Amino acid sequence: MENRDDRIEDSTIHERETPSDPQVEVKGLQILQKTEKKKGDEEEEEEELSVERIFEHKKVPSWQEQLTLRAFVVALFLSVLFSFIVMKLNLTTGIIPSLNVSAGLLGFFFVKTWTKFLEKTGWLKQPFTRQENTVIQTCVVAASGISFSGGFGSYLFGMSETVAKEAASYNDAQNVKNPQISWMIGFLFVVSFIGLFSVVPLRKIMIIDFKLTYPSGTATAHLINSFHTPEGAKLARKQVKTLGKFFTFSFLWGFFQWFFTAANGCGFENFPTFGLQAYANEFYFDFSATYVGVGMICPHIINVSVLLGGIISWGIMWPLIGAKNGVWYSSSLSSSSLSGLQGYRVFISIAMILGDGLYNFAKVLSRTLISLSREIRTRRKNAVLPVGDHNSPAGSILSFDDERRTELFLKDQIPLWFALGGYVTIAIISIITVPFFFPSLKWYFILVIYIIAPVLAFCNAYGCGLTDWSLASTYGKLAIFSIGAWAGGSHGGVLAGLAACGVMMNIVSTASDLSQDFKTGYLTLASPRSMFVSQVIGTAMGCVISPCVFWVFYKAFTDMGQPGTAYPAPYALVYRSMAMLGIEGFSALPSHCLQLCYGFFFASILINGIRDSVGKKWAKYIPLPMAMAIPFYIGSYFAIDMCVGSLILFVWQKLNRAKADAFGPAVASGLICGDGIWTLPSSVLALAKVTPPICMKFLSSSDNARVDAFLGS
Amino acid sequence: MENRDDRIEDSTIHERETPSDPQVEVKGLQILQKTEKKKGDEEEEEEELSVERIFEHKKVPSWQEQLTLRAFVVALFLSVLFSFIVMKLNLTTGIIPSLNVSAGLLGFFFVKTWTKFLEKTGWLKQPFTRQENTVIQTCVVAASGISFSGGFGSYLFGMSETVAKEAASYNDAQNVKNPQISWMIGFLFVVSFIGLFSVVPLRKIMIIDFKLTYPSGTATAHLINSFHTPEGAKLARKQVKTLGKFFTFSFLWGFFQWFFTAANGCGFENFPTFGLQAYANEFYFDFSATYVGVGMICPHIINVSVLLGGIISWGIMWPLIGAKNGVWYSSSLSSSSLSGLQGYRVFISIAMILGDGLYNFAKVLSRTLISLSREIRTRRKNAVLPVGDHNSPAGSILSFDDERRTELFLKDQIPLWFALGGYVTIAIISIITVPFFFPSLKWYFILVIYIIAPVLAFCNAYGCGLTDWSLASTYGKLAIFSIGAWAGGSHGGVLAGLAACGVMMNIVSTASDLSQDFKTGYLTLASPRSMFVSQVIGTAMGCVISPCVFWVFYKAFTDMGQPGTAYPAPYALVYRSMAMLGIEGFSALPSHCLQLCYGFFFASILINGIRDSVGKKWAKYIPLPMAMAIPFYIGSYFAIDMCVGSLILFVWQKLNRAKADAFGPAVASGLICGDGIWTLPSSVLALAKVTPPICMKFLSSSDNARVDAFLGS
Repeated sequence: MENRDDRIEDSTIHERETPSDPQVEVKGLQILQKTEKKKGDEEEEEEELSVERIFEHKKVPSWQEQLTLRAFVVALFLSVLFSFIVMKLNLTTGIIPSLNVSAGLLGFFFVKTWTKFLEKTGWLKQPFTRQENTVIQTCVVAASGISFSGGFGSYLFGMSETVAKEAASYNDAQNVKNPQISWMIGFLFVVSFIGLFSVVPLRKIMIIDFKLTYPSGTATAHLINSFHTPEGAKLARKQVKTLGKFFTFSFLWGFFQWFFTAANGCGFENFPTFGLQAYANEFYFDFSATYVGVGMICPHIINVSVLLGGIISWGIMWPLIGAKNGVWYSSSLSSSSLSGLQGYRVFISIAMILGDGLYNFAKVLSRTLISLSREIRTRRKNAVLPVGDHNSPAGSILSFDDERRTELFLKDQIPLWFALGGYVTIAIISIITVPFFFPSLKWYFILVIYIIAPVLAFCNAYGCGLTDWSLASTYGKLAIFSIGAWAGGSHGGVLAGLAACGVMMNIVSTASDLSQDFKTGYLTLASPRSMFVSQVIGTAMGCVISPCVFWVFYKAFTDMGQPGTAYPAPYALVYRSMAMLGIEGFSALPSHCLQLCYGFFFASILINGIRDSVGKKWAKYIPLPMAMAIPFYIGSYFAIDMCVGSLILFVWQKLNRAKADAFGPAVASGLICGDGIWTLPSSVLALAKVTPPICMKFLSSSDNARVDAFLGS
Repeated sequence: MENRDDRIEDSTIHERETPSDPQVEVKGLQILQKTEKKKGDEEEEEEELSVERIFEHKKVPSWQEQLTLRAFVVALFLSVLFSFIVMKLNLTTGIIPSLNVSAGLLGFFFVKTWTKFLEKTGWLKQPFTRQENTVIQTCVVAASGISFSGGFGSYLFGMSETVAKEAASYNDAQNVKNPQISWMIGFLFVVSFIGLFSVVPLRKIMIIDFKLTYPSGTATAHLINSFHTPEGAKLARKQVKTLGKFFTFSFLWGFFQWFFTAANGCGFENFPTFGLQAYANEFYFDFSATYVGVGMICPHIINVSVLLGGIISWGIMWPLIGAKNGVWYSSSLSSSSLSGLQGYRVFISIAMILGDGLYNFAKVLSRTLISLSREIRTRRKNAVLPVGDHNSPAGSILSFDDERRTELFLKDQIPLWFALGGYVTIAIISIITVPFFFPSLKWYFILVIYIIAPVLAFCNAYGCGLTDWSLASTYGKLAIFSIGAWAGGSHGGVLAGLAACGVMMNIVSTASDLSQDFKTGYLTLASPRSMFVSQVIGTAMGCVISPCVFWVFYKAFTDMGQPGTAYPAPYALVYRSMAMLGIEGFSALPSHCLQLCYGFFFASILINGIRDSVGKKWAKYIPLPMAMAIPFYIGSYFAIDMCVGSLILFVWQKLNRAKADAFGPAVASGLICGDGIWTLPSSVLALAKVTPPICMKFLSSSDNARVDAFLGS
């Protein structure tokens, strides 16, 4: 799932947004449909709606004025909130839905409440503008983005001893690095900022010349614009109220559940809803408000894909392969050994993820190159025009909206020397310092990454602008394989590969994020400078907050990273296994595992191919291989939750489409945030060694008789 | 609770009924308010509404035509349904809400569906009339009434060895009689019919001359009348749909819960919602759909009273008295010994029930006598008028409704010789046969009962017509004390007392039931003859169905009657203890128990006195001692359920009063019926010795650690 599906959700959640403003909604939909079309068509709509006419009489504050203290205070608060949520998701299943709507909504709500209060007391110096709202949004997304791209659920935690023990081989000192708050913060600081500089020089090309759509950024901008119209503000207030209600419910539910989880295997999260047999095969509803919420945000097909994946793997394949215990693999192995049944789970899962990743990499890259070459050809023809309007029926006449937006976008420049200088400086610092953190990641590996990275960053930013998909984790996986293999297993190749993944992922992911933000800023008349500063501040916040939040989890839940616990961190083992695969090849796989991997790898590509070739109408009925791969490894209990969420939304839509569309995301966000925030006190309780008083245990009838006899005596 | 509160609920549920027909609702309310006023005022409303004008053109079928086969088939089906439900309620807490609405609704639904179907096929010979509907209603109420007045949860089961062992003393062969399906059916047949004959000669006096209101009967009649108008039928259909939805939900929920109850102490019914400490003191939400439904039907004050009773007893008194273990009572006693803590629970509970019963007995009897003497005095003055209309502003002019109703009510006579002959015949049979069942209940005890009974039956029928309260169980308790003491402990006095209670209760309870039905029949133009026949058939059905249903429970749940199990049958021990108390006096009570009993006995009278003296406005905030007494003995878990039901209804009423009023009773009935019907398959499963596969167990943190260690080894 990861970043890619994060983006999938992005497009969906915004599609559902602000339905009481039909123009905006239609616009949002059209923009998404246009992802597949030529981008030039956009002007037409822009002219019809002319959002900027509504805001014409409102003064746009200078870029320094856009960066208010209150904005960053709110952003800090929300960053902590979302870091907790993202971290929890990272460490449970790795499926992270878009939280942009919640961030936008809550940011608006807090500052609006604050300014309303000040207005009443007469102390308000500066009104709340949409530019300021954009600044908050950008800062929060940048900060909580680090929780994902920092790899706490994937490459970074994959370095730890816990995961190394799971993977069984390569757990020597050279290939293991346990999390420590100091080096994590240091590492993130040196690798996270460089991406910002890589994309700054290209912003005009991306936004104004190429007019890339950036669906997520555009949708966020429309959301923010709508909030600042009177009607939008009213709807937003109602949505916030709904969010608050479900937030409270979800928080209290988490609190209530806690009392019954005295030990592992206790409580609602181990409820054998469909019986003990199904529970043993990971089919149960675990009463998690978070994943019900995630299911409500994700498109139905993703939820169905996850469930399908769960049925295929835990329902059919693993029981069948398990029956070959002692034939295909030694029966004396521990249950978590990668040479046993666990190996099939992990590597088949990796094969599907890689197949899907490779397909999309090829697809997005080829589309990027084709579009780019066409762009350049056209640009040569129209070289005289400062801002290109080729292919547009409106020709070279600029709409009012475009004119005003372009004017303000170009007003505050960021000099080229600043961007280049920044990139080179940080690269040098990084090349010098990172090898201190990871001795096996030699300085020349990093140099090579930083030479190649700007090209990949550009590709990713461009591809994301076209399709809304960030391929950051795919680029990260490429780094794992290539650098891991280059370093070699005996020279700490596993650790080198994982660290290289971190360096690569951070730069590529930040580049696409900032481009999205520039688009949002362009559409809300926020200055590129304030966007950049906000992103820098947000990144700095994230570099401190995320490791700290991770640290809380790591200290509080000492069994983290082990399958079957509350925080299995599934991607940590997957990433580490990839690094091992890159080094030693396929020799360590159990019997027939390689054949199965090939099968699923190509099936994954094939399914994607079919999805793209059958057309929109049928594509929505074809499952996504990436989504199917997740339950292969961790089981399908969260798939049940997500399908419950999907079902709730489906029924709600049947009953009252308009209401479901307007408040569905708010309900979902409330469920996710409430449960996410409950992890804060729950980890504090765990740190304080407070054990819940009760264990809600599920025993088979015969075990129960034994236990009753035991307790009775 | 028992019959008396059954009646309380009656009045309430009907007050809430058919709100979409505002006239009928207002009428219902007024009728209830008039309970306190002079009855003569009724004519006015009757004239304004003139229900009979609406039905004027509809032919009233002859009394033989009213008794259709289909009506009795449906009645049989519903009787089984309601017998299961009433039996379950009997055996769990003894609180039985009125099921008249469900019976009316479902009866209407089944016959209507059937006739609609026949109408389409063209085979319909006889349309569905309201008279037929009344016949079904009467038959079902008579049949399921036996489940209550048969004493399966009170005097009859109180004779059994299980309960005798609980009560510790008087468990010799003379004072114990285990349930056997043969003697139970025989006993019920000889004692249940006599009540019908006792009231037949008085029907004209009660209904036409005295114009008693019979709130329940009147409300049921209005319900049935409204069903047979087009609008009423539409609402009824919607209500049936709601009922069906919640029926299904409740049934499935019961089914789902079953899987987790592998043994005692397992499953949702032992969920320590408020922690293990609160659970040990019987404070927990046990997820019972039945009692949530009961809470929705009962007035808020009853639910609050029950909870208050629970808090006073299990929250305060029992822990305090428990601390006196070894001081006030011997600490070597078993936990169920009546000389220990259990004694305080049972006898204080009895003291409150007796105090409340005595107060209301005095109140209703004095009101009955005053009203009766006034009636007779007035009647003497207006002796020339065949139907008295004294005190009414309309004077001696009869309304259209009254005229038509009176005409039809008097058309089909039941001869006096038939009633008297029947009474004497059955009395003789009973006097001869009952001593065979219970040797200690001598023939002269029964003779005395049957000589006194008609007077008590008349009092009860009259009192019920005035206040809607049936005092059947109070008369039963009088029989326990008097006959028990007369027979004496050494001559099987306990058994004699309990059996005498059965003889008395059946006659008195049937008398008031049939009077209610006559009123319903009067208002729906059903013939008294068809009412009588229907009640006879219903009673016969009940005499067979109820013992069979009880037998299913008795055989399926072998731990029935023991505290802490799923079916504690709380009143069985209470009734048996009363019989023992009657024989041996207060000598066996543990220290200070008698003082406490006196305190609560007088407090109960005092609270009732205050309720009656402060006026309507404040009375609804003063708890009912009878309701408070129940949790004293069995704990307050069902009080939590009932308060949850109350809360749901309260919130619903706040959100949408009209909808809550229209559909609340349907939702509640659905919840009660679904869960009640689940007991049918659940007892079949228990009989077939199918153990649920899983035990959902709740262990303290330390116990859990021990169990984990035990299971791990």
